[in-house]
Amino acid sequence: MKKEKWLEMFQKIKNGALSPEDALNHIIKEPFEDLGYAKPDHHRALRQGAAEVIYGAGKTPEQIRGITDAIKKSGCETVLITRLAREAADYLSGFYDFKYDAVSRVGIAGPIPKPDGAGYIVVATGGTSDMPVAEEAALTAEALGNEVRRLYDVGVAGIHRLLGSMEILANARAVVAVAGMEGALGSVVGGLVSCPVIGVPTSVGYGASFNGLSALLTMLNSCASGVCVVNIDNGFGGGYLASMINHIK
Amino acid sequence: MKKEKWLEMFQKIKNGALSPEDALNHIIKEPFEDLGYAKPDHHRALRQGAAEVIYGAGKTPEQIRGITDAIKKSGCETVLITRLAREAADYLSGFYDFKYDAVSRVGIAGPIPKPDGAGYIVVATGGTSDMPVAEEAALTAEALGNEVRRLYDVGVAGIHRLLGSMEILANARAVVAVAGMEGALGSVVGGLVSCPVIGVPTSVGYGASFNGLSALLTMLNSCASGVCVVNIDNGFGGGYLASMINHIK
Amino acid sequence: MKKEKWLEMFQKIKNGALSPEDALNHIIKEPFEDLGYAKPDHHRALRQGAAEVIYGAGKTPEQIRGITDAIKKSGCETVLITRLAREAADYLSGFYDFKYDAVSRVGIAGPIPKPDGAGYIVVATGGTSDMPVAEEAALTAEALGNEVRRLYDVGVAGIHRLLGSMEILANARAVVAVAGMEGALGSVVGGLVSCPVIGVPTSVGYGASFNGLSALLTMLNSCASGVCVVNIDNGFGGGYLASMINHIK
Amino acid sequence: MKKEKWLEMFQKIKNGALSPEDALNHIIKEPFEDLGYAKPDHHRALRQGAAEVIYGAGKTPEQIRGITDAIKKSGCETVLITRLAREAADYLSGFYDFKYDAVSRVGIAGPIPKPDGAGYIVVATGGTSDMPVAEEAALTAEALGNEVRRLYDVGVAGIHRLLGSMEILANARAVVAVAGMEGALGSVVGGLVSCPVIGVPTSVGYGASFNGLSALLTMLNSCASGVCVVNIDNGFGGGYLASMINHIK
Amino acid sequence: MKKEKWLEMFQKIKNGALSPEDALNHIIKEPFEDLGYAKPDHHRALRQGAAEVIYGAGKTPEQIRGITDAIKKSGCETVLITRLAREAADYLSGFYDFKYDAVSRVGIAGPIPKPDGAGYIVVATGGTSDMPVAEEAALTAEALGNEVRRLYDVGVAGIHRLLGSMEILANARAVVAVAGMEGALGSVVGGLVSCPVIGVPTSVGYGASFNGLSALLTMLNSCASGVCVVNIDNGFGGGYLASMINHIK
Amino acid sequence: MKKEKWLEMFQKIKNGALSPEDALNHIIKEPFEDLGYAKPDHHRALRQGAAEVIYGAGKTPEQIRGITDAIKKSGCETVLITRLAREAADYLSGFYDFKYDAVSRVGIAGPIPKPDGAGYIVVATGGTSDMPVAEEAALTAEALGNEVRRLYDVGVAGIHRLLGSMEILANARAVVAVAGMEGALGSVVGGLVSCPVIGVPTSVGYGASFNGLSALLTMLNSCASGVCVVNIDNGFGGGYLASMINHIK
Amino acid sequence: MKKEKWLEMFQKIKNGALSPEDALNHIIKEPFEDLGYAKPDHHRALRQGAAEVIYGAGKTPEQIRGITDAIKKSGCETVLITRLAREAADYLSGFYDFKYDAVSRVGIAGPIPKPDGAGYIVVATGGTSDMPVAEEAALTAEALGNEVRRLYDVGVAGIHRLLGSMEILANARAVVAVAGMEGALGSVVGGLVSCPVIGVPTSVGYGASFNGLSALLTMLNSCASGVCVVNIDNGFGGGYLASMINHIK
Amino acid sequence: MKKEKWLEMFQKIKNGALSPEDALNHIIKEPFEDLGYAKPDHHRALRQGAAEVIYGAGKTPEQIRGITDAIKKSGCETVLITRLAREAADYLSGFYDFKYDAVSRVGIAGPIPKPDGAGYIVVATGGTSDMPVAEEAALTAEALGNEVRRLYDVGVAGIHRLLGSMEILANARAVVAVAGMEGALGSVVGGLVSCPVIGVPTSVGYGASFNGLSALLTMLNSCASGVCVVNIDNGFGGGYLASMINHIK
Repeated sequence: MKKEKWLEMFQKIKNGALSPEDALNHIIKEPFEDLGYAKPDHHRALRQGAAEVIYGAGKTPEQIRGITDAIKKSGCETVLITRLAREAADYLSGFYDFKYDAVSRVGIAGPIPKPDGAGYIVVATGGTSDMPVAEEAALTAEALGNEVRRLYDVGVAGIHRLLGSMEILANARAVVAVAGMEGALGSVVGGLVSCPVIGVPTSVGYGASFNGLSALLTMLNSCASGVCVVNIDNGFGGGYLASMINHIK
Repeated sequence: MKKEKWLEMFQKIKNGALSPEDALNHIIKEPFEDLGYAKPDHHRALRQGAAEVIYGAGKTPEQIRGITDAIKKSGCETVLITRLAREAADYLSGFYDFKYDAVSRVGIAGPIPKPDGAGYIVVATGGTSDMPVAEEAALTAEALGNEVRRLYDVGVAGIHRLLGSMEILANARAVVAVAGMEGALGSVVGGLVSCPVIGVPTSVGYGASFNGLSALLTMLNSCASGVCVVNIDNGFGGGYLASMINHIK
Repeated sequence: MKKEKWLEMFQKIKNGALSPEDALNHIIKEPFEDLGYAKPDHHRALRQGAAEVIYGAGKTPEQIRGITDAIKKSGCETVLITRLAREAADYLSGFYDFKYDAVSRVGIAGPIPKPDGAGYIVVATGGTSDMPVAEEAALTAEALGNEVRRLYDVGVAGIHRLLGSMEILANARAVVAVAGMEGALGSVVGGLVSCPVIGVPTSVGYGASFNGLSALLTMLNSCASGVCVVNIDNGFGGGYLASMINHIK
Repeated sequence: MKKEKWLEMFQKIKNGALSPEDALNHIIKEPFEDLGYAKPDHHRALRQGAAEVIYGAGKTPEQIRGITDAIKKSGCETVLITRLAREAADYLSGFYDFKYDAVSRVGIAGPIPKPDGAGYIVVATGGTSDMPVAEEAALTAEALGNEVRRLYDVGVAGIHRLLGSMEILANARAVVAVAGMEGALGSVVGGLVSCPVIGVPTSVGYGASFNGLSALLTMLNSCASGVCVVNIDNGFGGGYLASMINHIK
Repeated sequence: MKKEKWLEMFQKIKNGALSPEDALNHIIKEPFEDLGYAKPDHHRALRQGAAEVIYGAGKTPEQIRGITDAIKKSGCETVLITRLAREAADYLSGFYDFKYDAVSRVGIAGPIPKPDGAGYIVVATGGTSDMPVAEEAALTAEALGNEVRRLYDVGVAGIHRLLGSMEILANARAVVAVAGMEGALGSVVGGLVSCPVIGVPTSVGYGASFNGLSALLTMLNSCASGVCVVNIDNGFGGGYLASMINHIK
Repeated sequence: MKKEKWLEMFQKIKNGALSPEDALNHIIKEPFEDLGYAKPDHHRALRQGAAEVIYGAGKTPEQIRGITDAIKKSGCETVLITRLAREAADYLSGFYDFKYDAVSRVGIAGPIPKPDGAGYIVVATGGTSDMPVAEEAALTAEALGNEVRRLYDVGVAGIHRLLGSMEILANARAVVAVAGMEGALGSVVGGLVSCPVIGVPTSVGYGASFNGLSALLTMLNSCASGVCVVNIDNGFGGGYLASMINHIK
Repeated sequence: MKKEKWLEMFQKIKNGALSPEDALNHIIKEPFEDLGYAKPDHHRALRQGAAEVIYGAGKTPEQIRGITDAIKKSGCETVLITRLAREAADYLSGFYDFKYDAVSRVGIAGPIPKPDGAGYIVVATGGTSDMPVAEEAALTAEALGNEVRRLYDVGVAGIHRLLGSMEILANARAVVAVAGMEGALGSVVGGLVSCPVIGVPTSVGYGASFNGLSALLTMLNSCASGVCVVNIDNGFGGGYLASMINHIK
Repeated sequence: MKKEKWLEMFQKIKNGALSPEDALNHIIKEPFEDLGYAKPDHHRALRQGAAEVIYGAGKTPEQIRGITDAIKKSGCETVLITRLAREAADYLSGFYDFKYDAVSRVGIAGPIPKPDGAGYIVVATGGTSDMPVAEEAALTAEALGNEVRRLYDVGVAGIHRLLGSMEILANARAVVAVAGMEGALGSVVGGLVSCPVIGVPTSVGYGASFNGLSALLTMLNSCASGVCVVNIDNGFGGGYLASMINHIK
């Protein structure tokens, strides 16, 4: 509960509109739901108009539909579902205005909100094979109300293409740098821009890429300031944090 | 070169003011120096009034003094020096208005700028032994013009103390969560606040903490959204990124 | 042989009822079988009424049936079978009063014994995807004669739900904390309760969770006292140890 | 606050004894302090008569003395200090009735309490070089009010010595198995006794022991039921958990 | 653009054949494509007559055909495609003069160029199971215009066979040493020849070969001078570098 | 060439039966084949009557048949084939007197030779799931002319069964100790016997067994003298070395 | 007790020379000491005339002297002490006929026994820096009654020197191959000889040698049959096992 | 022996100038020394005028002087000594015309040869702290007769400085890219030049750089073709290989 809610409740008690026993019952039944800071559930209370998020992996289509309904009932129009299997997407599209991106396995139930961030977010990738993770980041950011500019396949082995996009990079409010293999994209971008750079290592590669470990270590050791890292293949995490930064007022 | 510069050059060629050969010579000799986006050196162009940064490790006191002088000459009043040995600090304090924090081995030459960020930054630690890294983060943020609130020793093994500081956390613009051993602080804070959380794993611990690896993996795997990570013991990186976020306009 | 047995044998030798040669033969043929401490087989001698355990992985349905019959013949009514494939379960249910839990792949032949422990055991999980391991722990504990209370999906990224269950936690005799990804649940619970906490890291997660390594290291490095750890995904081990503690007299 | 406290507060509001504003103030100022479960600090509330614990590493002698005084003032007679340097011990012995064990670097200020556990604890080691960790476990258990029996140098490479102590092992309430190198002691003991076995891997060894990793993995993979593990070299953790189990009523 | 192209453009401007605005337009539209050093895309500008390369993994047959067409249109007769699935090869062979090696999954569209290097390249393997990687190296080198001599199955466990090929080795211009398991081939060859040796560790092996890690470390630690290493299973990288060295003038 | 062969050649030269040029030709054409120590191929020259060995993995049934024929032609009656798929075994059994063990995937073409070693070899396993690797060791040893005694499922979690077989162990000439999970069997056996113990770690286990790494490290760190280790799951290597030791004269 | 001892005891009981109670007392007091197979202590019962062994690391000079005296009193003339600090050696040389090798830190109290093995042992090293470990192996073997031939600095980067020693290698009864860095010596020697090869990886090297891990993995993955491995830097283990093999009758 | 030598020997036999027995004796005594391909020792036969190399670590000043004398006597004027301690350098400078570089710990006895390679070598570093390794590479190359151009501190976090040196890079015959931390320099340079790039990862960095592992993996996973890698901190290896390539004719 926000402060006002507490005060309101106390005044109802004072006025006799609420008995102490009923008040107790109320805070016992939903012990933390109303404390004002705690979130009603896993999903953070987001800005008006933005999407709530469901992690789709390991949930049945029916479970996902149940949670989606609950979220929609609570007044949130758009629900973002990550790691969603095509079968589940097919099922869900029978119930909602539904979009599904097979590459990133992201589904969106409801309208994509109009961008309301302060600027735009760049999602850049080292190679084309990093696209599934990059799209998870980009669609997450879009579903959370951000304008996203995609710079795909601008890896450091062909640095001129990255440099050719300097203007777009220079004006971004946050850059999500998605790269596997040697993962140097994060460092190079971090050295070029002056906004926060969120590195998303991917498991793309073979041999000594060790399923993303190489890219992860590269990004963690970046000599450039202003670079941080999320988990391997965690496109959602990158897009979410970029959106947070883009909505700082 | 900016567009105007190119156009200007082409017109000089047209007018005969510049021969094609001299034009060629020009772009060969300084191919990238004038592209308009590249930064003059390692150090990012920072806001007016904020500090420039020197990484002190592996530099002689004289070298550090040389760089400091150059920075000051370029008009920057405050210079932040990280990983600075006490001996070097003693030497430098003979030349500047100098502060040295022996715990974090951070030195500051010149005045600490008045905070000019949008809000304040919280630096939180799991235990008292994480303090050296936390102070590096806090002093970095202060030298870059931020108000910093310290919440030390609020690790998850005594969760009530962390919860007791909810109000300070809830209103922060960014939280730097510094923790070694199991490193769970990042996740727990990430679940409580709605601003970006920057995890700084520390090498504090023994046995299977493997010099910070345990805390690093914990933070990377955080279930909470909005959490990102920098390198082990990289207090500077955490403070720098938090400052970036706090100065977003 | 127990002391009495040795004495008895020596007296028989003295009396001439046993020749020295036959005595020698006896201790050569079964050197350790009668020493009084060794267990007749892999399976520990358990309390009356509790189940014996079979590790089902890599055994044929027929082999499992054979062992089950042998155990039942020896007077133990209930047999717990872990890592049991559905096909084997289908086969076995033709021979016994049989329960099978498809989520945890645990089968139980015979009645579940009435709880006879001193208190109850809490099995808590960080997320819903940790359920297969958690159920293995919970069903193991139940088959060994314990009352189990399940607290699922109380991970630290939504700490208020965990705190909302404080009363249940505070009165437990042992807590089995099952968590993958960052695995911080063990530490947080360890800081809240005063009974032993058994951490079971799970292989749930992706990227830098490295198949449970991240959760394992987190739990081993717990700053909270009274926390110990079993192998990744070893729900059986967690439930077994909790039962041991709950049956200490 | 406990339920009664909430009800009492609500009734005061109803009665006018407490204004809604003051009630609000109250729950804002100390949001968690009165919830009834949270511990006043890091240190668990222990049984009457047992010691409180200070982790000595990284603390100055003066800081340790300060904390010791505070604990003693709060009514606890005995203070256990782990990882205590000899110099700090010398300093402290000027102020308290002080014992110091140089091998395990454990200090105890005040009397060692009389054992009040249900049985005794066995601390066993694989080799003589595991003694520092084993003594940390043993002294911790003693300071927490337990009778401890030491079985040192009974490693599996000379299994007969372990078997020669079967009677002591068989009657223990908990066994702390301390071993480095191959760390097989935990498994072997786990197969012999029917009480909980707490494995403490040590960093003793060279080459592919990788500072305790080998022993840690061995213990985690124990085929014996009822075995759990704490961090490498964490003798304190082993002794603490054993004491917990020995004081279960 | 090569120097001549720049000069030509400048002269057109001077002559009025090109307006400054059109010149600007030209370099803006393709900002880096013509700088003379940067590559028009991923694929390095190679010598006349040699093949361009496509990394086939993760691309659809149609995409590969599209890129192949583009390369051919740009005047390059031969296109090398690595990690190519048989299905894609079948599809492509309908459009080009196409060769496909099922062992190494290498496809070549167009004629294999006549060798034009200074000498020949040896591709050696430790065992027959390293052949897929070795063939990728050999075919790459051939497609890039090199004579290749294959020395397969000359691993160090039968050193005499390697020694029996000394004459071929001694006269090579570069040796690509392909080996899994213990990977000692690189060191032994490096000790025998005086040309550069490029080690290609393979993921062949089991157990503690850890998918090529063992061979990789062996090669990196080679005591022989003149040995370098590329990624695990990276036959293409080995063949490419060897070709580079064989074409040094 | 053996010494005698060299001498013979030199004498032929002296006698004029061989011209110096032909002699040169001879040693150039087959430079190492006749040096007397080098092996004609991968397969060591074995004792009369014992089997030659083929590593079956990654070879086609036809290739295996070809090699088998060549070996038989060279006068060796028995051929041992490891890692042999059932299909290949079915094919081969059409051509030879063939035995196939589906558990260990070992095939034997020709008669199993009569044991001619000095004593017998014990192959012991920790659990029943280590049997495939153990049988590879046992069958290898048998095909190489050894008497083998199997002690299966005598893991250290039930130490009495191992001790119950002391007499068999005590008289062995070599012990192959096959164990996964915690792999303590090697150490315990090493402490009980006075012959060489060859540890074969297996990839049996889950979680922190890390595919045999845990057992490997345990065995390498064995405190018992006389214990050595071969690769994970390398039953052949264990059986081969044991045979070597058993045939030392 | 040996069989004869048991029989003797039983007969004494029969004859009345020993009461059943005294017999019981006897076997309770020293339960395992006389079982005939168990060793009186850590140190295996060795052949007549050979040395007993003390692991010197972590023991005081006085402790080592005490153990040495005890061993000598039990009738063993020669005592081998490994990992012995120079100071301890100086102290011990005041009491015994003492030799100390500073390179390997091996001390020997008493005469070195005359070789009584069946053949000789070769100790080979890859480089001169592997000598400390190699000497530990060689001196161990000598103290246990073996003739040792040293082949130092015959690493695979200069394979001809190894081949130049073929005759010595070919006639050895066991080879101890000591090598750091890439550790290929084990494989190459294993491919050349037909006796057991014991690989001793050393921690010699830098960078990606990872303190011996590289050499360890190389040796474990050896393609040559008849190669086994002991712990990193475990020269003692290598020499001990070689001696065992050289004394097989 | 070269072919001519063999022929000569055979003719002597024919002529009776050499008895068959003496011929046999000759090839037994020095079996490989004269085969014509094998190197007389560790050190490769180098081009006239270039230096021989001694690895100084772990050798006494006297030993180094001895080897240096031997090399000089064999006609080589210049001796390069790597990993040389200052004390040893001081000692050696008393005997030779000696240069010592304290940063890289490289010593050179005798004159530095005039460059005789086909072109020049670039040694580039990511940061100033990579200089010790870079200087080892540069001085090695110079001592082997190469012109070296140094591009220090051109790491990817300030990419414009690297690009500003394009002309130097573009005309190099080989580039040695020395970098620690994230090690992206190798990839970026590899994407810019068309000569071989030799990556030398350094152990510079902290935290998750894991002593050079991060840079090593980055370089191994480079997306750019023509990039290879040597061991961590192996400046000598990088310089040596670059010299080899620069001297290819």
